[in-house]
Amino acid sequence: MYTSCLLLDLYELTMAASFFEQKVALEATFDLFVRRFPKNRSFFVAAGLEKAVHFLEHFSFTRQEIDFLKQKGIFKDAFLDYLKEVRFTGSVYALPEGTIFFPNEPLMRITAPIIEAQLVESYLLNTMNVATMLCSKAARVVAAAKGRGVYDFSLRRTQGQDAGLAAARSSYIAGCFGTSNVLAGLQYGVPITGTMAHSFVMSFKTELESFRAYASTFPDAATFLVDTYDYRKGVENAITVAKELEAKGHKLRAIRLDSGDLAVISRRARAMLDNASLAYVKIFASGNLDEYKIEKLFKEGAKIDTFGVGTNMGVSSDAPYLDVIYKLSHIEDAKGNGNPVMKLSKDKVTYPGKKQVFRQYNKKGLYQKDILALEGEKVEGKALLIKVMENGILTSPLPTLEKIRAFTESNLKALPNKYKELYAQAQYPVALSKGLRQMIAQLTREIKSKG
Amino acid sequence: MYTSCLLLDLYELTMAASFFEQKVALEATFDLFVRRFPKNRSFFVAAGLEKAVHFLEHFSFTRQEIDFLKQKGIFKDAFLDYLKEVRFTGSVYALPEGTIFFPNEPLMRITAPIIEAQLVESYLLNTMNVATMLCSKAARVVAAAKGRGVYDFSLRRTQGQDAGLAAARSSYIAGCFGTSNVLAGLQYGVPITGTMAHSFVMSFKTELESFRAYASTFPDAATFLVDTYDYRKGVENAITVAKELEAKGHKLRAIRLDSGDLAVISRRARAMLDNASLAYVKIFASGNLDEYKIEKLFKEGAKIDTFGVGTNMGVSSDAPYLDVIYKLSHIEDAKGNGNPVMKLSKDKVTYPGKKQVFRQYNKKGLYQKDILALEGEKVEGKALLIKVMENGILTSPLPTLEKIRAFTESNLKALPNKYKELYAQAQYPVALSKGLRQMIAQLTREIKSKG
Repeated sequence: MYTSCLLLDLYELTMAASFFEQKVALEATFDLFVRRFPKNRSFFVAAGLEKAVHFLEHFSFTRQEIDFLKQKGIFKDAFLDYLKEVRFTGSVYALPEGTIFFPNEPLMRITAPIIEAQLVESYLLNTMNVATMLCSKAARVVAAAKGRGVYDFSLRRTQGQDAGLAAARSSYIAGCFGTSNVLAGLQYGVPITGTMAHSFVMSFKTELESFRAYASTFPDAATFLVDTYDYRKGVENAITVAKELEAKGHKLRAIRLDSGDLAVISRRARAMLDNASLAYVKIFASGNLDEYKIEKLFKEGAKIDTFGVGTNMGVSSDAPYLDVIYKLSHIEDAKGNGNPVMKLSKDKVTYPGKKQVFRQYNKKGLYQKDILALEGEKVEGKALLIKVMENGILTSPLPTLEKIRAFTESNLKALPNKYKELYAQAQYPVALSKGLRQMIAQLTREIKSKG
Repeated sequence: MYTSCLLLDLYELTMAASFFEQKVALEATFDLFVRRFPKNRSFFVAAGLEKAVHFLEHFSFTRQEIDFLKQKGIFKDAFLDYLKEVRFTGSVYALPEGTIFFPNEPLMRITAPIIEAQLVESYLLNTMNVATMLCSKAARVVAAAKGRGVYDFSLRRTQGQDAGLAAARSSYIAGCFGTSNVLAGLQYGVPITGTMAHSFVMSFKTELESFRAYASTFPDAATFLVDTYDYRKGVENAITVAKELEAKGHKLRAIRLDSGDLAVISRRARAMLDNASLAYVKIFASGNLDEYKIEKLFKEGAKIDTFGVGTNMGVSSDAPYLDVIYKLSHIEDAKGNGNPVMKLSKDKVTYPGKKQVFRQYNKKGLYQKDILALEGEKVEGKALLIKVMENGILTSPLPTLEKIRAFTESNLKALPNKYKELYAQAQYPVALSKGLRQMIAQLTREIKSKG
């Protein structure tokens, strides 16, 4: 999908115009990170890098966009001429998609001429926020389902269309089995799945007739929605048609429950199916589910094989945004003189310098502790930030979706269980290195003395 | 922006395939409506129609999309051949954008061949949900600001890119003064605005130098962000540069506060500016604002002229989705025999028949009561659903953005204040007409007797 480079906040352009006129030729390093956890979160799963990198690779204003800016009368011609030619020529370090990370750890680190680094800010924040938020949420839902299939059914309620695509991709990365979103199948190769709607059942004179019609078209891939009128009668009708399918050598795939007390109804439906020797017919449940409800359903003895999870996962309804920010941490002038920088605003302190995240493991290979350090500092652990772009060019091909999904699974396994509880999670330790602590102390003194 | 028609849930296609094979040639009527209020909402403002209608007008699958479906091996060739040619040929009634509405009142009513009506479901729900949700949220923020300017600053945290555009457009409709989102300026004509970021200030050796640089580029349109290091010093620096601008015949536009106790700081900043004879310099505030915080700031005597509101408005963080649904209400066979339909699932009952919403006014011209009725029923009040498409073609041009914004303002004025409180709102009365009540009773009996 083409995205306009004008999808930015106007101040990126006004600041750029001022830098341009003042001939400010700094190379800037920005960290993109999440400041703090939303309620009920104890880890994040990085996602969105593929889309972000694609944007950076193709960054360029169109003629129409420049004409629009000219028309606005805000900018001088020399600056608009510069914008016509500007491309992203910087370098990018990032956490590979599927990496588990924590507040204050850079998810991306951008080093570029300051104007370029600013022009891409809004898009990068937007893209990384939605993909990472939805991936982190879906990882919780997948964990609650304890290995049973979870499908993303959120498209109709996601906040817009590309959010629907991000939800499908991010939830698949997090371990979902697939999505109802057909375009996500075409664009990303996410497996697609579908059942039927109440309106389908209502379009026929009887429920039984609707099941027969659907089974005739999809004799080996039918899931009947049984609760349009009364689920008991619905399950009976499903059993009738399942037997008719058996007589023709086919098998009903599943029934779907979409309302009512799913724990009670699923147990009764399971018993009815089993009594009819239809143990192979799966029970698919949907209807306002999330990780909390799925955990509760298991506690209540629900007999559910597969979950369709929509809105709550697709908008991360209990935490609909991350406190993601993009902060200047280092500047270097044309002569190569570098300076770490930091901000001191109340509650909004940032960490200075070009940084790296080191992860330490325990003897079992599980994550034990992270150290946020300065680049080049000798710190024990695995460096998590990887160079993905240099001079505006991708350094090596990005992994496939399947590889990202497998990588995520292995990362989630290496995160100790106490950090994966749905409520009252333990806090994973992230320490600052000695070098970073010294730099912070020195800069704080300098800023305060400037007063 | 082009949107793929494959942005749909797979079951729309599997149901369509079954309808196609079974030669089900029904004309279906669907209502798109919101089932209930989220917490702390007492009215909705309709938005999203322009985009929805644009989608319906251009509905058509591309060759690449058909090839993808063929490759999936789910569908037979005859159905895929049908999909190549399918267009939306139905009729649409809708609430004009900016209309105030309430739960169970159709926001759109679609009548079309049942396959077409299903194929557009996911997109319509997605589009109307996000636009209406964000417009309804922004109307609350605008009300809390009591006439002071509110600008949409949400792009970096909206759930994706088209959500950012929807936020800018919807919040402008709701009464915001503009947006930081430049593309929303190009695409929709929303006024755009911008200030500066902390990184700009940090890119210069001193704050004073950064203000001078910006003022030199934008001598008549500068807003200085004064809290990068210490707001007192920041305001002093702003005053210094404001005086330098005055000497050259220019005027500083505003200072911006983005952190700390905005009530206290804005009062102090106002006093400092006034003491320096800079009463014309406005105070712009931002930083995690929403309608609740704005109301609180006024109570605490904040001296703020303009608000930049981001994340909480742009993702409607306290209600990040509406319970919007698309339900079959009427079917008609090829011979013209029509039947109203309804669903009886627990907690998910729907209202049958082709419906209209009538609004009654009190003597002052304020909204008093709505009646949800059957089309053609004689009911007192103004009919709110307007025909916008017939046979897939727009019946008349849609209003401009400025007209929609003015229409919204007049609607909001006609909604009595008790429904506009931020907390503990009164519930606006929506009654069912006699005809609709009788139809519901009859259909309930019929469904129950079918068992």
